[in-house]
Amino acid sequence: MTRYKAIISYDGTLFSGFQRQPEARTVQEELEKTLTKLNRGEAITVHGAGRTDAGVHAYGQVVHFDLKEARDLEKLRFALDTQSPDDIDVVAVEQVADDFHCRYAKHSKTYEFLVDNGRPKNPMMRHYATHYPYNLDLASMQEAVKDLIGTHDFTGFTASGTSVEDKVRTITRAEVTRDTKTGFLVFTFSGNGFLYKQVRNMVGTLLKIGNGRMPVSQIKTILAKKDRHLAGPTAAGNGLYLKEIIYED
Amino acid sequence: MTRYKAIISYDGTLFSGFQRQPEARTVQEELEKTLTKLNRGEAITVHGAGRTDAGVHAYGQVVHFDLKEARDLEKLRFALDTQSPDDIDVVAVEQVADDFHCRYAKHSKTYEFLVDNGRPKNPMMRHYATHYPYNLDLASMQEAVKDLIGTHDFTGFTASGTSVEDKVRTITRAEVTRDTKTGFLVFTFSGNGFLYKQVRNMVGTLLKIGNGRMPVSQIKTILAKKDRHLAGPTAAGNGLYLKEIIYED
Repeated sequence: MTRYKAIISYDGTLFSGFQRQPEARTVQEELEKTLTKLNRGEAITVHGAGRTDAGVHAYGQVVHFDLKEARDLEKLRFALDTQSPDDIDVVAVEQVADDFHCRYAKHSKTYEFLVDNGRPKNPMMRHYATHYPYNLDLASMQEAVKDLIGTHDFTGFTASGTSVEDKVRTITRAEVTRDTKTGFLVFTFSGNGFLYKQVRNMVGTLLKIGNGRMPVSQIKTILAKKDRHLAGPTAAGNGLYLKEIIYED
Repeated sequence: MTRYKAIISYDGTLFSGFQRQPEARTVQEELEKTLTKLNRGEAITVHGAGRTDAGVHAYGQVVHFDLKEARDLEKLRFALDTQSPDDIDVVAVEQVADDFHCRYAKHSKTYEFLVDNGRPKNPMMRHYATHYPYNLDLASMQEAVKDLIGTHDFTGFTASGTSVEDKVRTITRAEVTRDTKTGFLVFTFSGNGFLYKQVRNMVGTLLKIGNGRMPVSQIKTILAKKDRHLAGPTAAGNGLYLKEIIYED
């Protein structure tokens, strides 16, 4: 048996998320179908590092899977890439240790969130950025976003009813910039793990702060009170990108 | 009667081009449907400056149409924008002279063509750039593209069987650059008018030159011989953008 790790990118628009589920088109299922074909019909299971939701995109999702025989890496990448649907691309394939697990091996993830702040929107980007045609004060958001950096209990930023018990996570990078060419806002977050809907809830809160409908101190308040009701609405999935996953070793 | 000029942007992916045609979804028809609704059901005809093909996008298409009464411009823009389908946006509306015609008034058009030169492609851009995963020598293309500037008979770059008799056009700007952030190639052409499929045929030829399968002198040869068979294949419509139209007055 040989274990392979692959970096994949996909356009989340036409997927019901990464994770396999009945009667829905998912990235996991499409990859498994392609790999099974390449494996002469013997079923292959694909494990993913991040369970992106419906509409969420990826440039750097990581998966792993096992094949009986060792394969030429570029040939395997090319076959997987060209035989997968057009909205999935295989960026890289490498051989890894038999006990490597893309989800449990220590790693840090980077997410990006794009907001089209134009009026009207850019129609070419309607599936690739969330449209927010209201006034946004960049300086307020830049001040507030810093409060997310560090080790905190992020209960106030996750979906209520999440089954994960430990809601303490560490964010190492949190920033907002305005792309001078497109005028889009680019939110970037890196950390050792994110709770369900955490990034989208942080963005939803920052947009309310930028629009002046929440104070700059709101992030601090939410972290202290751990109350989801104090946070802004969940920003739409179409603006979110799983950008990169870096493993510790 | 009041004549209005509007700048519109659209995602060409789901359109069979700009111009109305039976049993096909077109930009012209969608705009006419929206305007007719806004005009209490009385039919409105929309004229477009450029007849973009299926899959071709626009940031700066210009149209004109007449309404019986004068309207508040921002209210009209907002109504047209929000009531049009999601893949059409209305950037600006202004009142113009009753004899203004967006196609016949003297103007210059700028087209942009995006080529995803990555391997694999960027899946988010598969409808918004043409994927060309082969080697491209930027310097050769930059040298060759200059030969397009000036007043020439572009017969060799238009679709055979075009009904337009005069194939002399003037190109004032023609360049190729590589976007340092995305790695994409950006072709830009400005001129007083372009023949049917001219931009896509120029790009197809420049790609062959960049890939070393045609000499750098090929543009000069095509312009001199006026022979379509000497040019490269027509590049796909999904990379093409009608970027801007500037009127002389």
